[in-house]
This record gives sequence, structure tokens and C-alpha cells, in this order.
Amino acid sequence: MKLSEGVEWTVHCCSLLAGLPKEAALPAKKLAEFFDVPEHYLAKHMQQMSNAGIVQTKKGPGGGYRLAKPAEAITLLAMVEAIDGRRSSFKCTEIRRRGPTGAAPCAYKTPCGIARAMHKADKVWRAELEKTTLADIQLLGLQETPPEQMKKALQWLKEVFCEKNS
Amino acid sequence: MKLSEGVEWTVHCCSLLAGLPKEAALPAKKLAEFFDVPEHYLAKHMQQMSNAGIVQTKKGPGGGYRLAKPAEAITLLAMVEAIDGRRSSFKCTEIRRRGPTGAAPCAYKTPCGIARAMHKADKVWRAELEKTTLADIQLLGLQETPPEQMKKALQWLKEVFCEKNS
Repeated sequence: MKLSEGVEWTVHCCSLLAGLPKEAALPAKKLAEFFDVPEHYLAKHMQQMSNAGIVQTKKGPGGGYRLAKPAEAITLLAMVEAIDGRRSSFKCTEIRRRGPTGAAPCAYKTPCGIARAMHKADKVWRAELEKTTLADIQLLGLQETPPEQMKKALQWLKEVFCEKNS
Repeated sequence: MKLSEGVEWTVHCCSLLAGLPKEAALPAKKLAEFFDVPEHYLAKHMQQMSNAGIVQTKKGPGGGYRLAKPAEAITLLAMVEAIDGRRSSFKCTEIRRRGPTGAAPCAYKTPCGIARAMHKADKVWRAELEKTTLADIQLLGLQETPPEQMKKALQWLKEVFCEKNS
């Protein structure tokens, strides 16, 4: 069972966006440059984040992506579901009804015990993801990013915004 | 995020095997017939269950798959991991280290907060799957299978074992 790589990319991007000054935005091109990931795929995933109401697009000069709401109001679950959807990781195809012994669909009163246990585990996983917000992630990032990177990142952001405004 | 279809198939097969008389076995062909799934793929997945020590192969006439241990000792997690592996559903590719601001790998003292939260949720999911055993699943199956199917299934098993012993 694997989450798509877009989850890692977009959560990191949102964590970076959460650290920008109010009203500031970064285009997909710059986000892709910062994390050295393919711009085309990243843009596609950021569009999914936009569709989910997590980021919004600021048009015009200095435009790009910015958070659509406070980082405290964005859960890790919301970001994961923006990319990988809300469907349970277990897809029940009702094989119990098939084959030579299967009964009529109406004879099955409840989802089978296998599907129930799998869906419950999926819910528990989502509930755990819901406990973490983008603000928590951003704070850990600020506390744990090596000083060397923090310095370079601030310089990089300064150059990007000077470039935009020049 | 999706579990492979082999999970649904093999858990159902193991639940059927759990109901067989002691020493009885069913070949992949008959399991595939019972659930109307492709024999070739099912056999591949049953081999994964065998590699994980969940089922074993009985050779000779009346041979096939049987459980390698009591249903009480087989967890849903063990069956899921036999098919989909033990790796976390979140694969961290350390994108924080990449790009123009990345520091030397040794500067990063811990996995990042994103990876930690994702791995924790994965652990919680696995812990939930570990709470259910094949014996639990089999019991629910016995209690909830429509009487019409139960009757046909017993007849089907009777025919399969008479065929084998004739």
C-alpha cells in the first residue's frame, strides 16, 4: 500500500507556503526549484490542492500559490485526501457473492467481516492523520531545519521576492 | 492509497480454508472456482501467503493449500503484509535535502516531521489490523453467510472432497 509521491511534495510545499509573509505567493516553478522536483507534475498536484481548497492562486505579478486558510485549519489528512482521495484503502469487490455458491445480492445484509475490519483500520489511519495540522508541521520544520539550510532558504526567498518586485 | 486486490482474495480463501476439516486442503484451482477469480493470479497470491508461513502446501491426491497454523494465530495484519509488504505506506524521498537550499545529509538529525506523522499513522493502521484474527473473520463469516449460500457451500465442499477421494 503506497501513498502517491505527490503527497510528500505538496505537504512540503504547503509547509513552505505557511512560512511566507502574508499575501506573498510562490508559483509552481519556484516551488519545483526549491525542492528540485519536476515542475509539470508538481503543478498538477498543486492544482489538486487548489481544488481541495487548501491553496489558492494569486494572479498577476508576484502571483502563484498561497494558503487558502490558516495553517492551523489545514490537517495532514486534508492534504493527503486532496491528492489520494477519500476512498477507503480497501476496495471490496464482494467476491463472497460470486462463484457457484453465491446467493442473491439481497441475501447479504451487511458488508462482510473482512471489509468491516479493513474499513475500520482505514478510518483509524485517517483519524491519526487528522490530529496533525500544517501548523504543527511548519513548527517542526522551523525547529529542525539545519541552520545552514535555514540561512540559504531565507536568502533564496529574499532573491525570489526581489526578482518579482523588480 | 489502495491495497492490492490480492488481499481481498487471499483473506477470503484463508477464511474458507479455516473452515475445512483437519488435514483437508484445497488447490488454487478450486479456491479460484469458489470465488470466481482468475486462477493464475490467485495462485501467485497464495504463494505469497505460503512464503509468509500462513498457508502450507499438501502434496499428492487431495492436496492443495491448508492453513499452516491455527486461525487464532493468524492476524489480518499478517495476511495484509504477506501480500502488500511491511513497508510504510509513506515513502520519504527526503526532498527537504534537495534543491538550492539543501544542506549536507549529515546536517539532518531526525526524519522530518511530515515523515514522522505519516509513519505514525501507518503504525496505527497496522496496529488496528493486528487486532483482528482469521478466527474472528471466520466466525463472522459463519454467522453472516446467507443460509442459501451456506447450504450450497457445504454441498460444493462435499462434492470436491468426494471427487478427490474417488
